[in-house]
Amino acid sequence: MQTTVGLLGCGNVGSGVARMLVEDGDFISRKLGWPLRLAKIGIGDFSDPRPWEPPSGLLTTNAGEIIGNPDIRVVVEVMGGLEPARTFILKALNSGQHVVTANKALLARHGREIFEAAAANKVEVLFEAAVAGGIPIIRTMKEGLSANRIRHLLGILNGTTNYILTRMSREALGFQEALAEAQKAGYAEADPTFDIEGYDAAHKLILLTALAYGSLPALEDIHVEGISRLTPEDISFAAELGYVIKLLALASRDEQDRLEVRLHPAMLPRDNLLSNINGALNAVLVSGHAVGDILQTGAGAGMMPTASSVLADIIELARADHSGVSQRVPPLGWPSLSAEKPKPMAEVRTAYYLRLTVADRPGVLAAIAGIFAGHSISLAQVIQKQAAQSGAESAATPLVILTHTALERDMTQALAEIGQLDSVLAPTRVIRVEDKL
Amino acid sequence: MQTTVGLLGCGNVGSGVARMLVEDGDFISRKLGWPLRLAKIGIGDFSDPRPWEPPSGLLTTNAGEIIGNPDIRVVVEVMGGLEPARTFILKALNSGQHVVTANKALLARHGREIFEAAAANKVEVLFEAAVAGGIPIIRTMKEGLSANRIRHLLGILNGTTNYILTRMSREALGFQEALAEAQKAGYAEADPTFDIEGYDAAHKLILLTALAYGSLPALEDIHVEGISRLTPEDISFAAELGYVIKLLALASRDEQDRLEVRLHPAMLPRDNLLSNINGALNAVLVSGHAVGDILQTGAGAGMMPTASSVLADIIELARADHSGVSQRVPPLGWPSLSAEKPKPMAEVRTAYYLRLTVADRPGVLAAIAGIFAGHSISLAQVIQKQAAQSGAESAATPLVILTHTALERDMTQALAEIGQLDSVLAPTRVIRVEDKL
Repeated sequence: MQTTVGLLGCGNVGSGVARMLVEDGDFISRKLGWPLRLAKIGIGDFSDPRPWEPPSGLLTTNAGEIIGNPDIRVVVEVMGGLEPARTFILKALNSGQHVVTANKALLARHGREIFEAAAANKVEVLFEAAVAGGIPIIRTMKEGLSANRIRHLLGILNGTTNYILTRMSREALGFQEALAEAQKAGYAEADPTFDIEGYDAAHKLILLTALAYGSLPALEDIHVEGISRLTPEDISFAAELGYVIKLLALASRDEQDRLEVRLHPAMLPRDNLLSNINGALNAVLVSGHAVGDILQTGAGAGMMPTASSVLADIIELARADHSGVSQRVPPLGWPSLSAEKPKPMAEVRTAYYLRLTVADRPGVLAAIAGIFAGHSISLAQVIQKQAAQSGAESAATPLVILTHTALERDMTQALAEIGQLDSVLAPTRVIRVEDKL
Repeated sequence: MQTTVGLLGCGNVGSGVARMLVEDGDFISRKLGWPLRLAKIGIGDFSDPRPWEPPSGLLTTNAGEIIGNPDIRVVVEVMGGLEPARTFILKALNSGQHVVTANKALLARHGREIFEAAAANKVEVLFEAAVAGGIPIIRTMKEGLSANRIRHLLGILNGTTNYILTRMSREALGFQEALAEAQKAGYAEADPTFDIEGYDAAHKLILLTALAYGSLPALEDIHVEGISRLTPEDISFAAELGYVIKLLALASRDEQDRLEVRLHPAMLPRDNLLSNINGALNAVLVSGHAVGDILQTGAGAGMMPTASSVLADIIELARADHSGVSQRVPPLGWPSLSAEKPKPMAEVRTAYYLRLTVADRPGVLAAIAGIFAGHSISLAQVIQKQAAQSGAESAATPLVILTHTALERDMTQALAEIGQLDSVLAPTRVIRVEDKL
């Protein structure tokens, strides 16, 4: 009796997985009670650079030696990208092999098809590494908190952006400066769009939403907004007001039980558990009706933390396979996926931080406050800073406003009207404030 | 097809479990895909007070209606205490019933016997609620981090003591004052000994040690020290030096791979993830060779958070039972328990904070430093405070010392010698400093 594993991909994560299977194989086999063996590693090209070089003989450019090979029980997909990963995974499932994947983009887009193929073939698809790297949040959602109705789930799901925001906040750096530093430190890619515009985190949020609420929303149906327009000025105003700015992933149900899923920069009160999550760390805070708030934090990326989660899935499948069972827990913890869509962003209610740039002359605040009142938006706090050259009529001066909870649609309309005012000299900066969570 | 549950005990936790099974039964059954049903609740006496009153007909004083009843697949023991809980659990396992228990004291003492009985009968014993209440740390250790060699595990495992320490630190309260407040707030029992002297946390630490290292140490073999002798003075000196005092549970392996398990107040650097865990929260920080540091925090006690964990175990057993499998994962994540014992406290190496009360006269520090040097203990920092009435020869004055890492045996001997000095006017306060973790 042994469990044999085949790997598809040997980039950063794949190398970490191969390394653990080889170097920690004895330890893991001792824990299992039987041998766990890496049989083959499928790669695109022998000449590709690999962060860790596997023992010779393991590499192959023929994926067919792994997919559908009856000697290989567990196929680990760590190639990334949509194709051929999707085709390979479906083939493996249809051949009766279990699959482990770290591919959040693929699951967010084609999860339904993949989970259904697994169920039809009575095999499992595990994906602990697809969300929050080394943090075992998938298991926590599927099993640890399985008896809870999830009130809301908040996450810091992207280490690159959290590192940038931490540097901007601690050193008062501009966004471009902090990004350049993150790239130098290896926390951001040469083309950072996917991270900084929120798409990476949004894919993870889609999967967490499925675990929390049994619905796998489409990327197009959720509001996604990155951090590239944040300024050190806003971060410092936020601090002055007792808040920290994070790129926040949020899934919840509102009072009418409607699903709400959104990803955008948000101001969190300084004493929120997520506000102290700094640097490249990820964190997920789950609030359940029975358990209350549970926070998990740790490395959200990196070769070895991600490999740690892939290995946990491999070990789980080895144990399941050994006891002859399959699909003990459905992939998302729910017997089936609902078709429920998140409500449109226009219908979301939240509080707002607004930084207007206005002319420093009498009557400006009255005009602005009048527009907000006309849209049923009530103001919680107004801070009018003195213009740089005091006395200079019409000098551009920041006007910072915190609102009470308002409807996004009302806010959008109010801001459009405010933008038409002569006394408003620049586009208004808007950051949502989450202080009710 | 349905899963039927019997409950033993209807105190605080038992009432929470009964309430969830009744009120959330539909939700959970929908998640499972088949009905989950509470059949019976065994109690000692109908006249006992119950925090939540179950529907009539469920209560029975005859445990025999639950234990060994072939219609009941899962027996939930939430009575507490060693007997009759131990006998009931063994009977249930020997009758082929799965068991869920929240009984940390029982498992810490009789775990081996209970886990062996489960294996012999091919049934499962789950105990998520026994450690850190609602935090799913048992699953994290058994499954989420299963591929990791655990470098160390640190925990704040008792909410009562963490609440008291937080109050002492924030309000400069004395221990007795903070304890009285905790009792008033419902965080401490009328007889708080079990919590404040560390035994409750030690039982949880024993179980976490078993999950991390496959050895279930005896309570007698680990160093257990509570918080009742801590003073606001030491907490304030700690803060001055950049540290926070926590009742720390620690399991690790030293450089010689020897197991180290201890529970005592410790000074942690302010930026340690555990240092921000305040109030009645619990937290566990696990450091794995691949994953790095993972922290989980949440409510460590309370009726509903604890019930949340019991329900997670019930759901896991319902799923396992449904797919006809048993003991997929061994109770501790290891195929068998080793007989390894933790090394004696005298052989532990750590840094120390010492607060001596000395006469304010020349030569005192020289004598003390000489004794430390004679025991190969090197000093990292010495702070000599001015006596209250300056100039008064021999006035008692605090001398605060931080040492580098030293052997506990050497420290004990040095302190015994120092205690003999005429110039040392009161027993020296000792708090271990953990700044290498």
